[in-house]
Amino acid sequence: MMNPLHDRYKAVRKHTLMLSEPLSDEDCGAQSMPDASPIKWHLAHTTWFFETFILERMEQGFAPFHPAFRILFNSYYNGIGEKHPRAQRGLLTRPSMAEVRAYRANVDARMARLLAGVPDAELAALVTLGMQHEQQHQELMLTDVKHLLAQSLLRPAYLDVPLAPAAAAAPLEWLALEGGLTGIGHRGDGFCFDNELPRHKQYVAPFALASRLVTNGEYLAFINAGGYANAALWLAEGWDWVRVQNLRAPIYWYQDEKGTWQEFTLHGGQPLDLNRPVTHISLYEADAYAHWAGARLPTEAEWEYAAIHAQAAIETGSLHPAGAGDAAGLRQMFGHCWQWTSSSYSPYPGFAAAEGALGEYNGKFMLNQYVLRGSSSATPEGHARASYRNFFPASARWQFTGIRLAR
Amino acid sequence: MMNPLHDRYKAVRKHTLMLSEPLSDEDCGAQSMPDASPIKWHLAHTTWFFETFILERMEQGFAPFHPAFRILFNSYYNGIGEKHPRAQRGLLTRPSMAEVRAYRANVDARMARLLAGVPDAELAALVTLGMQHEQQHQELMLTDVKHLLAQSLLRPAYLDVPLAPAAAAAPLEWLALEGGLTGIGHRGDGFCFDNELPRHKQYVAPFALASRLVTNGEYLAFINAGGYANAALWLAEGWDWVRVQNLRAPIYWYQDEKGTWQEFTLHGGQPLDLNRPVTHISLYEADAYAHWAGARLPTEAEWEYAAIHAQAAIETGSLHPAGAGDAAGLRQMFGHCWQWTSSSYSPYPGFAAAEGALGEYNGKFMLNQYVLRGSSSATPEGHARASYRNFFPASARWQFTGIRLAR
Amino acid sequence: MMNPLHDRYKAVRKHTLMLSEPLSDEDCGAQSMPDASPIKWHLAHTTWFFETFILERMEQGFAPFHPAFRILFNSYYNGIGEKHPRAQRGLLTRPSMAEVRAYRANVDARMARLLAGVPDAELAALVTLGMQHEQQHQELMLTDVKHLLAQSLLRPAYLDVPLAPAAAAAPLEWLALEGGLTGIGHRGDGFCFDNELPRHKQYVAPFALASRLVTNGEYLAFINAGGYANAALWLAEGWDWVRVQNLRAPIYWYQDEKGTWQEFTLHGGQPLDLNRPVTHISLYEADAYAHWAGARLPTEAEWEYAAIHAQAAIETGSLHPAGAGDAAGLRQMFGHCWQWTSSSYSPYPGFAAAEGALGEYNGKFMLNQYVLRGSSSATPEGHARASYRNFFPASARWQFTGIRLAR
Amino acid sequence: MMNPLHDRYKAVRKHTLMLSEPLSDEDCGAQSMPDASPIKWHLAHTTWFFETFILERMEQGFAPFHPAFRILFNSYYNGIGEKHPRAQRGLLTRPSMAEVRAYRANVDARMARLLAGVPDAELAALVTLGMQHEQQHQELMLTDVKHLLAQSLLRPAYLDVPLAPAAAAAPLEWLALEGGLTGIGHRGDGFCFDNELPRHKQYVAPFALASRLVTNGEYLAFINAGGYANAALWLAEGWDWVRVQNLRAPIYWYQDEKGTWQEFTLHGGQPLDLNRPVTHISLYEADAYAHWAGARLPTEAEWEYAAIHAQAAIETGSLHPAGAGDAAGLRQMFGHCWQWTSSSYSPYPGFAAAEGALGEYNGKFMLNQYVLRGSSSATPEGHARASYRNFFPASARWQFTGIRLAR
Repeated sequence: MMNPLHDRYKAVRKHTLMLSEPLSDEDCGAQSMPDASPIKWHLAHTTWFFETFILERMEQGFAPFHPAFRILFNSYYNGIGEKHPRAQRGLLTRPSMAEVRAYRANVDARMARLLAGVPDAELAALVTLGMQHEQQHQELMLTDVKHLLAQSLLRPAYLDVPLAPAAAAAPLEWLALEGGLTGIGHRGDGFCFDNELPRHKQYVAPFALASRLVTNGEYLAFINAGGYANAALWLAEGWDWVRVQNLRAPIYWYQDEKGTWQEFTLHGGQPLDLNRPVTHISLYEADAYAHWAGARLPTEAEWEYAAIHAQAAIETGSLHPAGAGDAAGLRQMFGHCWQWTSSSYSPYPGFAAAEGALGEYNGKFMLNQYVLRGSSSATPEGHARASYRNFFPASARWQFTGIRLAR
Repeated sequence: MMNPLHDRYKAVRKHTLMLSEPLSDEDCGAQSMPDASPIKWHLAHTTWFFETFILERMEQGFAPFHPAFRILFNSYYNGIGEKHPRAQRGLLTRPSMAEVRAYRANVDARMARLLAGVPDAELAALVTLGMQHEQQHQELMLTDVKHLLAQSLLRPAYLDVPLAPAAAAAPLEWLALEGGLTGIGHRGDGFCFDNELPRHKQYVAPFALASRLVTNGEYLAFINAGGYANAALWLAEGWDWVRVQNLRAPIYWYQDEKGTWQEFTLHGGQPLDLNRPVTHISLYEADAYAHWAGARLPTEAEWEYAAIHAQAAIETGSLHPAGAGDAAGLRQMFGHCWQWTSSSYSPYPGFAAAEGALGEYNGKFMLNQYVLRGSSSATPEGHARASYRNFFPASARWQFTGIRLAR
Repeated sequence: MMNPLHDRYKAVRKHTLMLSEPLSDEDCGAQSMPDASPIKWHLAHTTWFFETFILERMEQGFAPFHPAFRILFNSYYNGIGEKHPRAQRGLLTRPSMAEVRAYRANVDARMARLLAGVPDAELAALVTLGMQHEQQHQELMLTDVKHLLAQSLLRPAYLDVPLAPAAAAAPLEWLALEGGLTGIGHRGDGFCFDNELPRHKQYVAPFALASRLVTNGEYLAFINAGGYANAALWLAEGWDWVRVQNLRAPIYWYQDEKGTWQEFTLHGGQPLDLNRPVTHISLYEADAYAHWAGARLPTEAEWEYAAIHAQAAIETGSLHPAGAGDAAGLRQMFGHCWQWTSSSYSPYPGFAAAEGALGEYNGKFMLNQYVLRGSSSATPEGHARASYRNFFPASARWQFTGIRLAR
Repeated sequence: MMNPLHDRYKAVRKHTLMLSEPLSDEDCGAQSMPDASPIKWHLAHTTWFFETFILERMEQGFAPFHPAFRILFNSYYNGIGEKHPRAQRGLLTRPSMAEVRAYRANVDARMARLLAGVPDAELAALVTLGMQHEQQHQELMLTDVKHLLAQSLLRPAYLDVPLAPAAAAAPLEWLALEGGLTGIGHRGDGFCFDNELPRHKQYVAPFALASRLVTNGEYLAFINAGGYANAALWLAEGWDWVRVQNLRAPIYWYQDEKGTWQEFTLHGGQPLDLNRPVTHISLYEADAYAHWAGARLPTEAEWEYAAIHAQAAIETGSLHPAGAGDAAGLRQMFGHCWQWTSSSYSPYPGFAAAEGALGEYNGKFMLNQYVLRGSSSATPEGHARASYRNFFPASARWQFTGIRLAR
């Protein structure tokens, strides 16, 4: 019997494993910083999500695969109980990768039994949430392993395939948008996260949006103009951040012995491609650049309004953001870099979190984080939409983040 | 010749000195934490502001009172140059209080000469800004010295006058407000800070606002119900904050040997008055309380809309927030506690900072801080207005902050 | 042709690899704290030592196995140049274990060629130093992996073999030693480290030494008597250390659900054996226990004097310290626990470090570290001697350290 | 009736107050770092010592001057109970200086009644200990206020009297000493601290001691030779210390706009006097200098042996270490700079601390501190002797410490 939900489930789960294939067991165990997690932990945690939120509720005669996994692979759900300390995920050499693969297979088999019939609405909703959750971790697997590989003097590639030079980027254009009283938030029957709801009205004043992302070449001009040494361009907190760490460039940029700029990518070290968008940028850097360029970052409402009214296309990602090329109209809204907005991550009017531990999914992070819109080259296919609200602290640099200007 | 600007200048300057009168020179030199400053430093910095931003620009034959003061009493203006480290303001035993008083007198005399004629518009604007700036420091002097005195086992009073019990607080009522597309930001010709401009349109959905602030009695019920031990009520960052510091009550609450709740005030330790508003609350605590009470915090637009449409009165402050009593309508909007909103501090559409160092006054702090509205018992007379945007990090507790609920 | 030096070289190198056999590649990559190193790093660093200090000096046509390894596997030799940050050794997922094994094999083959003839004195001395160095790392491999495995909720065993209960420990006796003006330091032609030289005179006053180590049972009595809560027993620095970390027992002790004391060992969790010596004790704890017991720790001169004059036997180690049993005389001097002395680690009169980077081996650590004497159950056979000076900071607990009383 | 003990008591107490005379109340309240204390705190703590250890035991009808002072002015005696946090002594603006002076007068009056008759041996011993304790704090008052004044851009002088240039220092000579089995520790009936006992035998090998302290001129040569940038000269812990803080010179040295070296002294900023001894040196710096100079630091036994056998004179201090001049023999052993030894601070064989809280005076600090011998320009008259053991952590720089070489 055909079961499209189970087919999608299998496809998502298979893609996760596929992402771990270029890596050794050693690669999969290490954690390069508290914000990042080992690949093995991602493989286990996404499985824990299905076991805890679906099997534990709905499987007859439920027994956990391993009782300690409930603690070891809980990320941040206080409602579930104890958690292994986040910063020590890299010390979990046991269970081994082989055991975690067995855990995945076991849960997949039990899920298959549960999905054998026609799923009821609650099960379907939970499975869909679990798949969306796993897709979010697919993106994190790529950004986390990139950060790990970047720690090594050897600068190893995740995929040992060279990155072709991008075509020349067309000049940045300003698209005028008239705004007005507009609907913001998810519309329609498709899946969305709770933080995209409820759809509500906002007034958006007329504004202009840049036709494409800021390029490495443009960002290099900012550096060469002394951008990292000019307090007047930075938010107070950003300036402290720059000075304490003595920063001079994006996190993965470095100069070779001759002083030529290089960029560490999932393809290993590469000459800096001036036509590709600048990426792995903190909000501090994005804001300082915008200030320098005589512009500003968009609000999330402006971004969403533009994405819908200018009918931005979902572009195809690879392992690194691609150039804008010379096509007209609004480009690079999806598939290259998440785009920082000036909007702090806060609840939409009337927002209500789910009951129980699943209510911790989004709402409890709505403070001191900023919204990113769009999607990146690491976002799985089918995961992006115009109302999607990604969020990170202003200092985060290990995600595929970039700069879209507004004014 | 009558000169109202100079009269106002003299009144503001005199009030500042008056605030230091109950204190010894020793009291005036100490700094209890990096966020707070010594009274002596406030006296000098507010003077530095007039010397640096007015006399240096406009006084003929300008010579600084003391060349080192330019560095010692600069707060955060990178455009002016070097600064004495903020956390070490309490180590400045030299210059002495007597020298700082002489500095004040010297600058006041030079300002008197400048203000002798009819001031031009630029001078008048700068003097007005300097006075508003000094009033902000008047409030900080009270909150900073309160924090300092609270460090001592002796719990000394700033003013050794007992605090009378408040009348019973009327039950909290919900005032319904219809909202709509509304103007937000300062209107008219009077003074306002740059962050209150430009006036712009926002859409406010219908909402209800609490008629008064949350009382100590209500907050005590939250504590007794286990509020500080229930992760489900807190934002993720707030929960970390509570647990790392093992917090159980507002910062100035303590229990005597018999377990009775007391509150440290500028009048010294006092029995906790259940009818007065709870104060010295972080945004984390305000949000957790609202969650527990089945409500939420207002946005700053909602607060401003209500203050104007319900014609909130400016109430008279003292040294501690007073009870709401039993009058009808919207009470305690001004004069008791600053009220946390859920709005992060960000620029209004079209915001532009001033040129030069004065442009650092407000704009560079627009990240990871949250807006407070209203005014407190420590706010100087004439300083409050409906469009005023105060801001602090979510963890700040030493200001006179309180909780206004919305839903 | 028989070559005993090469035979010993091969035996030492083989033993190192053998120690890694019970572990997966994942286990070998992780680092549980900055003081500990991954097993893979130990395998590589001991090889680096031969490549850097012998092959680079003496091999014809020397070319490094991999140029980056010179940096990656340098521990602390500033004279060699740059070093990978110590706390980030666990992030080196590349080179892989397979590459590190290949590195070992390559260096072993090149060493075989160098050792094919009759080695001259300099080569023989350097090879001997390299083997002794590798033996030190063999002990660290066991203590480091024990610390790593202890981080997991699963409490996995390094060797999954149960630990038999020890026989009852004989009562502690006091052996009287007369001391006098005595020779201290290494004597004879055999190998010793530079810090054991020069042999020199010290005056040792008459003293008494405990016949055996302090047992778990005796240490448990100290805990039950409130030892960890009594400031009067502790050095000031030790008391701060206990209170900041809220310590109540040795690092690897824990109580099961019923409150029964267990000890984590290389054999996994085991019931606490009251007849075995207490181990994994900081100097702070050893000193507080001695204070409580009305005794003191020996000086290193007393320990060395006793070891020689009472003819202490080298006892056979296993993976955990064994009981003393009921034999008479001085027991457990070697083969169970390193024994804290009250002597700070400092140069013997006339001490001179070697020239060049090898001079950094010992001398530069002679400050704020304390001497341990004897050897432990993890010390390789043939590595112990009476003049051996081991040293660690007073807070170190992850080594097999124990308590020998004096008075 | 003549009472010499009371006369000495009054003289010591008066000298303490005299030291505070050049300072304002503001100066007396501030604390520049956790290791240093405010002058006001020293005035109160030395008084607390007499009140707690003498009056509380021996005064009829004892009642404390103020019950909170028992906590506020306890330094580190756990046996007495709670303590105000050390790092927050600068926040005690209450009690005021006037109240602390009244506290001193009150205790002095009560002590006068106690000392009116012929004191018994126990009282005499306690009063003597209290006076010696107060003399130690007299030295700390000078070093602590020097550190405080050094924090200010204004570089104010404690005594506004210029420092005359020293005469040329005679060349450093090496005095040969033959050593042997010798007695170490206090001898005779006079007062000594418990850590100078018991007198015991040590074997001292033949050695040579420098005739005078290392001068600023010699130390400047070390700096100019790149001493602070050469890892090979430093202990491992010292090298970390230098690099983390990016140090390049002694703590109070600085260069004026022309690059000329200046030294901050209690007389304010002064041109660096090349003939005076280098002072305010950490043990790390002293050891690195000795290494560079092809020498070493003496042990404390060597120092004491030399002081007695070469009959070193007590030289007269002022507020800054004086030059050695050209006299022959062993100079500058007392009265200029405390001299770092290579000996860690540990108990003499048979050391026993006093019973009760007074037993915390010395013994509990015998770990990770190093012994200094001699006395300094800040040591009160009559406080120095050959067996005196001063001690500080290796990183301490705010004391008047200097370098005596040995070999």
